[in-house]
Amino acid sequence: MLRSCTAALRTLRALRGRREGAFPAARDPVLARRWFSTEKVIPKDHALPNPSWSKDLRLLFDQFMKKCEDGSWERLPSYKNSKLVKEQLSQAQLFTRGYEDGLGFEYVIFYNDDEKRTVCLFQGGPYLQGVPGFLHGGAIATMIDATVGMCAAIPGGIVMTANLNINFKRPIPLCSVVVINSQLDKIEGRKLFLSCNVRSADEKILYSEATGLFIKLDPEKSLI
Amino acid sequence: MLRSCTAALRTLRALRGRREGAFPAARDPVLARRWFSTEKVIPKDHALPNPSWSKDLRLLFDQFMKKCEDGSWERLPSYKNSKLVKEQLSQAQLFTRGYEDGLGFEYVIFYNDDEKRTVCLFQGGPYLQGVPGFLHGGAIATMIDATVGMCAAIPGGIVMTANLNINFKRPIPLCSVVVINSQLDKIEGRKLFLSCNVRSADEKILYSEATGLFIKLDPEKSLI
Repeated sequence: MLRSCTAALRTLRALRGRREGAFPAARDPVLARRWFSTEKVIPKDHALPNPSWSKDLRLLFDQFMKKCEDGSWERLPSYKNSKLVKEQLSQAQLFTRGYEDGLGFEYVIFYNDDEKRTVCLFQGGPYLQGVPGFLHGGAIATMIDATVGMCAAIPGGIVMTANLNINFKRPIPLCSVVVINSQLDKIEGRKLFLSCNVRSADEKILYSEATGLFIKLDPEKSLI
Repeated sequence: MLRSCTAALRTLRALRGRREGAFPAARDPVLARRWFSTEKVIPKDHALPNPSWSKDLRLLFDQFMKKCEDGSWERLPSYKNSKLVKEQLSQAQLFTRGYEDGLGFEYVIFYNDDEKRTVCLFQGGPYLQGVPGFLHGGAIATMIDATVGMCAAIPGGIVMTANLNINFKRPIPLCSVVVINSQLDKIEGRKLFLSCNVRSADEKILYSEATGLFIKLDPEKSLI
């Protein structure tokens, strides 16, 4: 476990490292294949539009892609599989990418390095239901963790969620589009403090607010 | 939306009501069919062992089923679908029951009415991965929300998660079995305060601790 975890963490650190250019695997299919895929094909980047995306989600995506043109924002790629797991976990796949298009988590995360912010555009599909007609609180927590975690990992390297404190203000209708805004508030030693809010696509409704505490890990040490 | 939500909430309240006997749908297949299924067959109760359950999970399940014999504990049934959704959401299903056996959330929740406690036996499958080899923090948050939420809903009626504050102490290996213990600490007006911890099957490792605040809702009012 120690070795495989360390190797995985090294790879994650390399992926998230900014010095050699952000997210090189997003731009280099060969590198992407070496890092992520268990098959000898170019892995699918799931942070791109598919036919299940609503008009709202596509509009927001286009707006953010425009912001990427001057280099201030960057779209982060997202893959389902990692081959860096033990053999008995060969079925393992990223929790947020385990559904067919449109049924589960449809999302894309953008990052702004100068502002240390991430923005996640998220459409929660019908398989994420809690109370009938609304997203499960756990699905919201999952996307908050993913968005805040990415905002911590890019400047922080290998990090682990230590605390998530979420205020659920209003339930989110199933299949609607929300925008999750996260920012790095401060760093104290190995601790990274972040905050986050979840709003409707038109930003008029505040659905949730959250804070996150992440700890920088030593990639040479085992997680367990 | 108002009507369908209100109807759904009424049904949930009826399901969770204790006065006419706890969880009558668990014992009455006809009633269960009327409440949960979109098909004219008896709905599947997913809170029962299937071949994907590990030896640890089956052992714990058997222990808790024994505790149920004197009536102090009760196993809570769990269904995937509700027909109480709008037509366009006909694909909707409970987030935690959307996977094939063994791939996602395998769990059963037991309730102790005297102690106002729930215990969830949870085996997180390979589709719930975060960092390679470990459960995604969102998957843990999801099961904490489900366990604490059930502990609030049985005495509280219709409730909504207002706050979840989770301390992640150690990562949980994928496919391992954990025990989530939740208890109702106090009620103040419409507020229910709960706490929770997540431990390994042998209880030796503390993985997470959490608190939850839930608000009793008026089922006559719309959620949005």
